[in-house]
Amino acid sequence: MIGKLYCLGVGPGDPELLTLKAVRILECVPCICVPKGKEEGSSLALSIVRKALNLDNKEIIEAYFPMRKTKAEFRGQKGQKGQKAEAEILHSKFRILNFWDETVENILSRLNNGMDVAFITIGDPAIYSTFFYLYDRLLELAPDLNIEIIPGVSSITAAASRAKMALALADERIAILPANYINSLEETLELFDTVVLMKVHNVFDSILKILDSKQLLDRAVYISRAGMNDERIFKNIRDVQKKDLNYFSMVVIKK
Amino acid sequence: MIGKLYCLGVGPGDPELLTLKAVRILECVPCICVPKGKEEGSSLALSIVRKALNLDNKEIIEAYFPMRKTKAEFRGQKGQKGQKAEAEILHSKFRILNFWDETVENILSRLNNGMDVAFITIGDPAIYSTFFYLYDRLLELAPDLNIEIIPGVSSITAAASRAKMALALADERIAILPANYINSLEETLELFDTVVLMKVHNVFDSILKILDSKQLLDRAVYISRAGMNDERIFKNIRDVQKKDLNYFSMVVIKK
Repeated sequence: MIGKLYCLGVGPGDPELLTLKAVRILECVPCICVPKGKEEGSSLALSIVRKALNLDNKEIIEAYFPMRKTKAEFRGQKGQKGQKAEAEILHSKFRILNFWDETVENILSRLNNGMDVAFITIGDPAIYSTFFYLYDRLLELAPDLNIEIIPGVSSITAAASRAKMALALADERIAILPANYINSLEETLELFDTVVLMKVHNVFDSILKILDSKQLLDRAVYISRAGMNDERIFKNIRDVQKKDLNYFSMVVIKK
Repeated sequence: MIGKLYCLGVGPGDPELLTLKAVRILECVPCICVPKGKEEGSSLALSIVRKALNLDNKEIIEAYFPMRKTKAEFRGQKGQKGQKAEAEILHSKFRILNFWDETVENILSRLNNGMDVAFITIGDPAIYSTFFYLYDRLLELAPDLNIEIIPGVSSITAAASRAKMALALADERIAILPANYINSLEETLELFDTVVLMKVHNVFDSILKILDSKQLLDRAVYISRAGMNDERIFKNIRDVQKKDLNYFSMVVIKK
């Protein structure tokens, strides 16, 4: 018997936002695979699950997924342009593929031994999770993979709940975009009723300028680490200071 | 002691997609308020909760929320234009306010008697739930309202999980729009990596035409009633027939 792979969204941070289904599956599986990111040196998804469940008798596979940088980020960080940035990206992609192959092998060997494996991801698997990179690679090597993806509470809707605001009512339109699309922000603000900007920490001042020019400062809310212990919500975005900026941050603009 | 009001997202349909927090609160509160929509004549949110919990000793307040029609819908349905449509909308808004006032009074009287009340909503409260209309009215009458909003699994991410697809990776952009924005679909498809069209049942043929003209038919997935017992997923959108169209339907286009 070949094991089954689950990909589980564990929600934004509060262990009580795990679903009944996620808890049931995590209680049953003998092996949990966790992405290990930069954030606080260890897996945030794992720390959420540890608060809800005893994991003593489970095997934990820690998978290091370096975040893939975008061309804009490479350029921004190192002042590089054109070919050099391209070369860095290719090199970085190659390194990432190697890390993934190790994780893919780890998962497939457990499945082939009949073990079920749960890959856990913060928030929801469909929203900016690294899982789908891994999934493509898994399918290449194991096209008959038995897999089930379990949705979770996304940090986006969790942030809206914490700020007590609707993202959309009736026939309103929502745009969700990483904050590095700062150049298209004005156009997006024209077209949409609600704009959610993700990971705003590096471009926060530019966002403020654009919102000010469009007289939308009063329509914007800043939320960092929604649903975590150290969550911060600023209904007045002008009050946000440098120390309040964070990787897990977003700005929601509602016209 | 004044009671506390909870607004809970109960997820898209599968009772196992309730969060631990939603279950804990629903077990404690003596009174549950449920929106009663057109869909199958009774509350879908309540039927989800009933599958997970025994509600025998709880008071259930059923609140009828007629959906507020948009100007476009009024015009479309009745061939009305301009002033007549405006008048119909005003009349409809007035009727809706009356229904809401009844619900607001029902909720406030329980809270004033020291009872906690949970208002339940399908999916997540921030995504197209009627709760926020009610919330505005509640705040007018009870500005010191003690309220907590608990996010839930949205039908949008649940649909993506069921279709085993990411909505966004890395620095991709997502647009979520009700399908009656058919006129701006082409423009939105240009700007965004992923477009989620909600409630596509009435304009499905027009969507197909636009996707065909942009050679995106192969990049579109149709999902109806995600996470419910009678869920349908069409990875080939050409296979969708009239009988498969449904109020709880969406098309996800990933370029």
